[in-house]
Amino acid sequence: MRLRKKPGTVEKLLEHKGLVLDDPFINFGKWKEYWGNSNPIHVELGTGKGQFITTLARRCPNLNLIGVEKVEEVLLKAARKAKELQLPNLALLWVDVRELDKIFAPGEVDRLYINFCDPWPRRRHAKRRLTHTRFLQIYAKILKQDGEIHFKTDNEELFEFSLNEFSENGWKLKNICLDVAKRGPEDNITTEYEEKFQELGSPIYRCEAVKMSQGTVL
Amino acid sequence: MRLRKKPGTVEKLLEHKGLVLDDPFINFGKWKEYWGNSNPIHVELGTGKGQFITTLARRCPNLNLIGVEKVEEVLLKAARKAKELQLPNLALLWVDVRELDKIFAPGEVDRLYINFCDPWPRRRHAKRRLTHTRFLQIYAKILKQDGEIHFKTDNEELFEFSLNEFSENGWKLKNICLDVAKRGPEDNITTEYEEKFQELGSPIYRCEAVKMSQGTVL
Repeated sequence: MRLRKKPGTVEKLLEHKGLVLDDPFINFGKWKEYWGNSNPIHVELGTGKGQFITTLARRCPNLNLIGVEKVEEVLLKAARKAKELQLPNLALLWVDVRELDKIFAPGEVDRLYINFCDPWPRRRHAKRRLTHTRFLQIYAKILKQDGEIHFKTDNEELFEFSLNEFSENGWKLKNICLDVAKRGPEDNITTEYEEKFQELGSPIYRCEAVKMSQGTVL
Repeated sequence: MRLRKKPGTVEKLLEHKGLVLDDPFINFGKWKEYWGNSNPIHVELGTGKGQFITTLARRCPNLNLIGVEKVEEVLLKAARKAKELQLPNLALLWVDVRELDKIFAPGEVDRLYINFCDPWPRRRHAKRRLTHTRFLQIYAKILKQDGEIHFKTDNEELFEFSLNEFSENGWKLKNICLDVAKRGPEDNITTEYEEKFQELGSPIYRCEAVKMSQGTVL
């Protein structure tokens, strides 16, 4: 659910210096320098309140992690969580996913995560789904060759749509799972939303899509 | 459900001359001559009692259709149905799917249908599933380039397994559908089993897999 705009949120967000970046575009092509190491860069799109990305950051100190979120009220919660946990390998960006190719140079990202994005159920809104062809073209630009997208959703129609979009655009699918609770990866990291949804007993869908040479859009 | 063996079934089956072929291997590489035309050749694997293939034969007189079934008691029912309908563009073969590459020459088949095959749910029986890699290698031999497999099942785990097998073996997936009743093709032809299953309201899964160059095994 989209939270209501609260005055002063942006200011509070940007107080988290060194965690929430003032200028998300300034490290274009220089993210390795920003981190000061050559660890793989993994980016979560729509990082929400940050449970997934902060858990991953703690679990994998040898990954450089970036959470992207356009809703400032939600990102503020993620920032507070991250600050408390003191995670040197995490940065948060207050930015729209459509701008990713201005933030990362071609091939600069090793992996993307898309967790429970808005399904935009109406057909006329299909272009807004984060797995629509127009977004896949952006992801193909910033991901390295053989880079992966790890995608999870509880929405059957969005999952169906996404499998077809990935395949149509030349991404190789793997580890397709129609019920994560039953047959998902053992090290599955849940989001806040996922935990609530799991309690209802409804299935969660998951897949990985690998960028292949024919999937590249230059 | 496998029917009990009844004595005399094979004899009754082979009485349907011109419909059930005595020697399924004799037309290897010469199926166009058998039909006396160059229409596309579509083959259903595990044709059962024949509702799907006979409906397709009636609906598409410009296709040459072949139903393959290894259980003679079931195939006899298909033969009786087909005889009644007088379908000049249909042949039935009493043979095991593992022998397909002795029946069809490389590239001789335009499309394969696999409808509600045995899911073989135990992991140690995975090799028996008709979408296991070892079968996909046989299909890749006999299908023409860009030839397709149209696959339907009510079994979630088999569908998941099949999507991963197709993808892993370099087949391009398209028209993936997680609920045929809601979003399947308008011209969907049902099998006997499918109709019973639909009444229970459970979803039926469907996809198409296209043979790509890297999927070819020579």
